[in-house]
Amino acid sequence: MVRYNEIRAGEVGVDPPAATDASLVFIGRIHTPWTDRLQTPRQGRADGPLCRIEVFEPWRAALDGVEKYARLEILYWLHLSRRDLVRQSPANDGRARGTFSLRTPVRPNPIGSTIATLVEVHPDGLSVRGMDCVDGTPLIDIKPDRTLFIPIAPRQPGDDEVA
Amino acid sequence: MVRYNEIRAGEVGVDPPAATDASLVFIGRIHTPWTDRLQTPRQGRADGPLCRIEVFEPWRAALDGVEKYARLEILYWLHLSRRDLVRQSPANDGRARGTFSLRTPVRPNPIGSTIATLVEVHPDGLSVRGMDCVDGTPLIDIKPDRTLFIPIAPRQPGDDEVA
Repeated sequence: MVRYNEIRAGEVGVDPPAATDASLVFIGRIHTPWTDRLQTPRQGRADGPLCRIEVFEPWRAALDGVEKYARLEILYWLHLSRRDLVRQSPANDGRARGTFSLRTPVRPNPIGSTIATLVEVHPDGLSVRGMDCVDGTPLIDIKPDRTLFIPIAPRQPGDDEVA
Repeated sequence: MVRYNEIRAGEVGVDPPAATDASLVFIGRIHTPWTDRLQTPRQGRADGPLCRIEVFEPWRAALDGVEKYARLEILYWLHLSRRDLVRQSPANDGRARGTFSLRTPVRPNPIGSTIATLVEVHPDGLSVRGMDCVDGTPLIDIKPDRTLFIPIAPRQPGDDEVA
């Protein structure tokens, strides 16, 4: 059990404010081969196993057009993670650093992000590679990879502001 | 007013489920030159204006180590955006496509993400370039850019699983 939620030497937890500033709706669920957090990749790989992203109604109509993008940015809710550590020791060797300098799932708002390779679009979701979360993780957003997306909306003044 | 929250020809809204599946805490605030949504860039640029990311307590200790990364992934809450559109018409020309094929702020969970260029770390936050949000936008996460980050934690079985 100690691997799941312990505080290690050098780590620092805080008594965080109540998380009530905004609320999320789970728009789907991510199906992966990993049924335990101790099995998941630390980072998803583009040549990793095929995973299924299930999208719930009423959001399935929002999938129209995703087939135009070879890669998608996926945001998901790391529902098993504690949220109170500000310093963490990933190697459990007594050395710790700030949470914002790590891509650990333990963060004040435990949102994971990955760039997934799109394999197939289904009426109720996607088949992708590149995930790194445990089976059953709640889905919160799907966007085109920023490096592939060029805005369709008219330019605004800020688009042309350079330093 | 019509530019802010209207539904355009071809767009489709839904009656969404209550957003009560998980809750966020605002961990800071983003200060940008743009005081109106009609001024912001459609996408942040690395040579854009200097912006300040203010981090609230008790999260400032989590900044330790971010100076190791030239680029940071910033997640923020698009607090002014409606959340109910599944098909959108960015050019307002009668043509619409699914929300998940766009990087529009209007999404079931209005979370923005950008890759910011780090300019300076302060005790209470960061100076960066590359933001695209309105002044005062709530901050929800800071992570190293995935292309610069190599996990420190020991490998897990999933790291070596290839298709």
